[in-house]
Parts: sequence; C-alpha cells; structure tokens
Amino acid sequence: MQHVPSFGERLDATFARYGQLCVGIDPHAFLLSEWGLADTAAGVRDFGLRVVEAASGEVGIVKPQVAFFERHGSAGYAALEDVLAAARAADLLVIADAKRGDVGSTVAAYGESWLTPGSTLEADAMTISAYQGVGSLAEPIALAAAGGKGLFVLAATSNPESVATQTARRKGGQYSGLTVAAGIVAEVDDINAATPGLGHVGVVIGATVDSSDYGINADRLICTPILAPGFGAQGAVLADVPELYGDASANVLVSVSRSVLGAGPSEIAAELRRQSSELRAVMAS
Amino acid sequence: MQHVPSFGERLDATFARYGQLCVGIDPHAFLLSEWGLADTAAGVRDFGLRVVEAASGEVGIVKPQVAFFERHGSAGYAALEDVLAAARAADLLVIADAKRGDVGSTVAAYGESWLTPGSTLEADAMTISAYQGVGSLAEPIALAAAGGKGLFVLAATSNPESVATQTARRKGGQYSGLTVAAGIVAEVDDINAATPGLGHVGVVIGATVDSSDYGINADRLICTPILAPGFGAQGAVLADVPELYGDASANVLVSVSRSVLGAGPSEIAAELRRQSSELRAVMAS
Repeated sequence: MQHVPSFGERLDATFARYGQLCVGIDPHAFLLSEWGLADTAAGVRDFGLRVVEAASGEVGIVKPQVAFFERHGSAGYAALEDVLAAARAADLLVIADAKRGDVGSTVAAYGESWLTPGSTLEADAMTISAYQGVGSLAEPIALAAAGGKGLFVLAATSNPESVATQTARRKGGQYSGLTVAAGIVAEVDDINAATPGLGHVGVVIGATVDSSDYGINADRLICTPILAPGFGAQGAVLADVPELYGDASANVLVSVSRSVLGAGPSEIAAELRRQSSELRAVMAS
Repeated sequence: MQHVPSFGERLDATFARYGQLCVGIDPHAFLLSEWGLADTAAGVRDFGLRVVEAASGEVGIVKPQVAFFERHGSAGYAALEDVLAAARAADLLVIADAKRGDVGSTVAAYGESWLTPGSTLEADAMTISAYQGVGSLAEPIALAAAGGKGLFVLAATSNPESVATQTARRKGGQYSGLTVAAGIVAEVDDINAATPGLGHVGVVIGATVDSSDYGINADRLICTPILAPGFGAQGAVLADVPELYGDASANVLVSVSRSVLGAGPSEIAAELRRQSSELRAVMAS
C-alpha cells in the first residue's frame, strides 16, 4: 500500500524547499481595478492565475480567499476551481481560506468539498472556525488525516473586534480556566501530539495579537502548524517572526497579501522574491 | 423614493400569512439516496426544487444548507442558484445557511455574495459566525439593512461540543461577565433596539440548549428574530416553543429539516402541512 504523506510531512518539505512565505490570493474589487481587471468571474480567474504564475518556483504556499470568488456565484467558483487546479499543478501547497464551520454531517460536507482528493475544489488545507467547538470538527479532521490534507482552526485572529470573545474564559471541563483561543489551541495541540512530527491540524494566530493576552504560549506549539496573518498592511513585519513565535517559529506560515498583491501584475514576482528572501534571512539568523 | 421593507417587516408579514415554520433544504447523501436521486449537482438541484415546490403556499420560510451544494463545487453552486431563484419566485423567504465569517472587506464580500439584490446567490438572509466578534460583521449588517435583508448570528447552537466555548465568560469591555453566547445576543439586541419593530439581525439559539446555562433570557428578545434549530430529529418538539422562548416565541423561526425531508418526495407536502398546522395550534393556544 502506498504511503500517503501527511500534511505535516508535506509542509516540512515545502518549508525546506521554499521557506515559509504564504501568499494570499485576494481579488478585492480595488485590487482588480489596480490590476486593470474587471470585477467579474473572468477578472478573479485572471488575477488568481497571475498570482499562481508569479508564485510558482518562488514560494511554496498560496492561500486563495474564497469570499472574493464566492462573490461572483457559481461562475466565481468555476474560476476558483481553475485557480486551485493551476496552483496544485504548479506544485504549490494550497490553503483554501474558507473559514467554514458547522457540526456533524454538515461540517463533514465542507471537509469533503475542499479536502477530498479529486473533488473540483480540492485544496491541500482549509481554514475552519470552531465557534461550535473543536469537537464539532471531528469529521473533517479525520477526513484530512486520511487524505494527507490539513486544517487551520481560527484561534487568536488579528482584528480588534475579536478580543472579547477570544479572551473569554472557559468554565468547567478539561480546559477550564483557559481562554477560548487558548482552549482551541490546547485541543488542537493535543490532537497533533498523538502522532510524531508536525501534525495536520494547525491554528490561526495573528501576528498583530499579543498572545500572552490570550494565555497562549505560542513557542510551546512544537507539533502544531501556525498560520499567521497580520504581516504587511496589517502592521507586523517579517523580522518579528522569531520574537512572536519563539521556538515554534519554524512551524509558522507567514501570510502576506496586500503588501505583495499591491505591487501589481508586473512587479508581483519581484516583490514575492524580495519578501521570501528577507524571511529566509530572518529565519537563518 | 420607494420604501424598501426591512427584513423585520418582511418576517412579520411572512409569520402572519404562513406561520413560523422554516424548512431546511439539506440534501444529505443519505437523503438523496432515499429520494432516489443521484449524489450529484443535478441530484441536489432536483431535491431543492422539489422541497421548494412542496413548501410553496404551505410555509413561508426555507433554509438551504449551503454545505451540501458546495460539496459539488461550481456545478453545485449553479444548482443552488436555481433553487434560490425558484424559492424567491415562489414568494418564500430564503435563509442561506452558510455560517460564513471573517473580517473587514472579506466578510463584506460574503455579505455581497448572499445579500446583494440581483446577485446570482441572492437570498433574503444568511447565517453568519461571530467568532471574530459581532463588530467584525459591521459591513454585512449595514449592507443587509440597506437592501431589506437579514442576518442570523450564531449564539447558542444545539450541539454538545459547543458548550465550553459558548459558555466561556467575557472579561472586560461593555459586556464583561456575560458568556460568549449571551454577549453576542446582547450586542445583536442592542443593534435591533435602535430601530422600532422587529430588527434585521437575528440570533441562532438552539431548541435543545438550556438558555439559562448560557445566561440568555430568550424571552426578553422582543425585537430580535431567533432562528431555532434542534426540532424533530435533534430532540425538541413543536409544543416546547412557548416554554423555551417565552415572550419572544412570536419571533422564533422554528427550523425543521430531517423530520420533514425524511417523509420523502411524495409525502413531504403533507408532512409540511401537518407540522405547520401543529405549530400554528401551539402558538394560538
């Protein structure tokens, strides 16, 4: 029987070959306009394919933002299917930034949408929300494990409006006393600790949050991938990574979007190369 | 200038004419099989159109579960577009059960997808997640208000895995001391209280949860629509509505899915009629 590499193994190989930069594919209306593209399904397809072309061979990971494709309905989804297929064909690791969430057979259906080998929307991982509990995600977590796929569960996000909910304290149960965000991180880390190496269930911890406010010790997450938004336009800089994530820095997917996409179609490849080199230098120092 | 009726006004009119039953359009794989339909985009289209046909004239509200359409990729979304259009043409109020969530311009894009008049995925309301804070939903809340559309924010859901997160207690800020679920309910209710009548931002409070565990006084929500899953297969019965929701019972959308859909394509219309009559009798007593 063929060994299906786990998502953690695939992430390790990608980091080793290309470094840790993850490039958002976010066809905002204003960026489409700046790029000279129409705000249509054809425009988001062209935008996505151009980012994939620029990323190919320069970085290892791309993260399409599903909302900007969904905005164009089924035609936008057909465009997204083309972008996902092009990215995977270019040997990029693809994270569908979908932030889906639900329970039972419904969240299982979301897992099947994005993480089933051979599905039209196949990605390598997806972002997911645990408002209904990490336990509600059991089915997509199992599905991902079986197919060498990954998940990134929202924990401490990078927007100020999220603080009150994410720092609320759990009462009772196994993780009593932890904040909501720290509880999610602990539940996820426990899942990953059950198998050797880097696990297949990551967490989202924004680079602009002070993780001590949430009671999260990011540098203890040695087996959990961390997807880190908040660099560039949102305020964090690449040189901050080692201080922000400590011993877990090597597990961080450093997510950049507007700071790269704003370079425009002719300069994006050069800007990607520049940021990827800068991040490698930071991590090597 | 033409008056655009608010979502609250539209909901009141629907309740007066058809009562409070809301029928899920959930094409689970096992239901497609029971209905003799293929587990394909064509199958979910046929399933959805059949439910719309059965619901038309019998009930006022349908709730397609987006996950089961997304599972079939862009073709599934094209099927969903047909189902949404058929439901709206049949004068049904349509709630897209999407549970989307994000921040800023990204969550705005989700709002535009589902709540923009004329978009291919146009619904009358959508479900949304506030893991990133009710404040993160400002843009879709404003967009909905402008177009006579509505939102339902997840608060206390009906699955046991959600309890630890949803009962965690907020520390600091305006709603300090409230649980996560009660904080969301209070933030939403404050938005609705700013305008007369039933507001356009609802909450999801499951019928199988004991709302006192969450510190929620459901019967004080006199201006906030409540979407209530958990009836039928999940355990609550229609006769429970007045006790569960007290003075707010008149604002409750009583959501049923499997108990109706399981009747099969030939019996669904009769089962819908039976449950709708039963609920009217409960509410009139």
